[in-house]
Amino acid sequence: MNQVYVYPHRGRFQDIDAAGILFFARNFDYFHDAYLAFLEHLEMPLHEHLDDAEFVIPLVHAEADFAKPIRFGTRCDVHIEVARLGTSSFTLAYTLRGDGDRVLTTGQTVHCCVERATFASRALPERLSAALKPYLAATSP
Amino acid sequence: MNQVYVYPHRGRFQDIDAAGILFFARNFDYFHDAYLAFLEHLEMPLHEHLDDAEFVIPLVHAEADFAKPIRFGTRCDVHIEVARLGTSSFTLAYTLRGDGDRVLTTGQTVHCCVERATFASRALPERLSAALKPYLAATSP
Amino acid sequence: MNQVYVYPHRGRFQDIDAAGILFFARNFDYFHDAYLAFLEHLEMPLHEHLDDAEFVIPLVHAEADFAKPIRFGTRCDVHIEVARLGTSSFTLAYTLRGDGDRVLTTGQTVHCCVERATFASRALPERLSAALKPYLAATSP
Amino acid sequence: MNQVYVYPHRGRFQDIDAAGILFFARNFDYFHDAYLAFLEHLEMPLHEHLDDAEFVIPLVHAEADFAKPIRFGTRCDVHIEVARLGTSSFTLAYTLRGDGDRVLTTGQTVHCCVERATFASRALPERLSAALKPYLAATSP
Repeated sequence: MNQVYVYPHRGRFQDIDAAGILFFARNFDYFHDAYLAFLEHLEMPLHEHLDDAEFVIPLVHAEADFAKPIRFGTRCDVHIEVARLGTSSFTLAYTLRGDGDRVLTTGQTVHCCVERATFASRALPERLSAALKPYLAATSP
Repeated sequence: MNQVYVYPHRGRFQDIDAAGILFFARNFDYFHDAYLAFLEHLEMPLHEHLDDAEFVIPLVHAEADFAKPIRFGTRCDVHIEVARLGTSSFTLAYTLRGDGDRVLTTGQTVHCCVERATFASRALPERLSAALKPYLAATSP
Repeated sequence: MNQVYVYPHRGRFQDIDAAGILFFARNFDYFHDAYLAFLEHLEMPLHEHLDDAEFVIPLVHAEADFAKPIRFGTRCDVHIEVARLGTSSFTLAYTLRGDGDRVLTTGQTVHCCVERATFASRALPERLSAALKPYLAATSP
Repeated sequence: MNQVYVYPHRGRFQDIDAAGILFFARNFDYFHDAYLAFLEHLEMPLHEHLDDAEFVIPLVHAEADFAKPIRFGTRCDVHIEVARLGTSSFTLAYTLRGDGDRVLTTGQTVHCCVERATFASRALPERLSAALKPYLAATSP
């Protein structure tokens, strides 16, 4: 079985929209908050490397399915697994769980590693690949 | 040829992230801003119906591909077409264009009509279907 | 000496603006996040009472002074004290500290208790007044 | 009588909070959106100068009074005047009006001009001072 990184979270007061539920785009904020906490857990915090690394890993795709509405203050922990680990890119899979461990939202983000200067595709740093590997979902192709 | 609704927009100062580009999740905010302006253009503004209609049309899926970074103040007009128009749901397709009419972001959102009281699936109101029809993309299946 | 509630925080990736620092309005978000955590610490979490209490305590004033720029990932813990505790209103004082315990931002919010139905001014619930009292700043008038 | 710059606006869907009204901190976002539109109206758009000017004009103070709740879709136009025009700093005064021209929110922001390299205080560029002057409130001290 692969490891899963869990980022504890709850629906934030100001992220609720005029319909009384979490604004759908804020699910992506929570994905990204969890991703940054995950990188920090892997001892590669983005805020220490953002300005000086030779590479950047921009997000090229994001998607989500909204299964159940999330309300203010209710638990929506973000569970992260690695759905795909390629040579120069990887896909993270997110599940927001709460309300008695029900699935609230699922989603994915795709990240591609490029040279900072030229934006040419390049291999993921070995250290990052190695750190992501234990989280590679057993069900991934 | 189908109609296209265009919502003029530019990268907002506070939507830029620590990497100096539009935070990816804000693309979804711009999709939704354009969607609400589109509804208003169709003379069905959401803010007049949010509290009293018998139905609601929650968003069940969203996705986006980020082709080019969007920066502060640069144009990123949102072009909307209807990608799919079903009996009880529809899919909107968005293209953010700027920097000399280049495609910056593309994306889709899926909306399902349900009874407000029971959340049971129901047909889209006829008036809405009729209003969306001229925007149905010629290339849609 | 009065008690001080401390809410640990850091500059969030998506809250940085096009000038590369925390967007000034996000300081107010952090004040409010800390305020809600404070209420929870006092065992009066807002999300459990928002819909049913006979009173509401809207915010009628907010202000802040921005002493030093806050950057992505840097510590900006929110320290809360009660600056004033009146019969029907109270003022909270916030200090964001980081970068070696330096003061980054200071600010205040004023909250007035009103009847939910009529919005007429009313006394703060006794339980809330009692809970806030230990945090009343020694230097307050 | 001085000139007033008016920025048309309405309460945005995603800016509503769990209490059903505009989240107080978003008033400051609207102030700033109006400020940037004002600079553009004065033919000094920030996004063209942010990266290369010799000076920057950081915001050092912000405050607001919330007179009436703002709801989704309701008008809240931002009226800007110059409350104070000093040698190296200026204060803008904002009034959000709507609901039949009622005052919804009032507020101020203070901006100080500094050298980009050293952050030493310096005089406002003459062109900016001249452009702001017609908006100096008749009632200002």
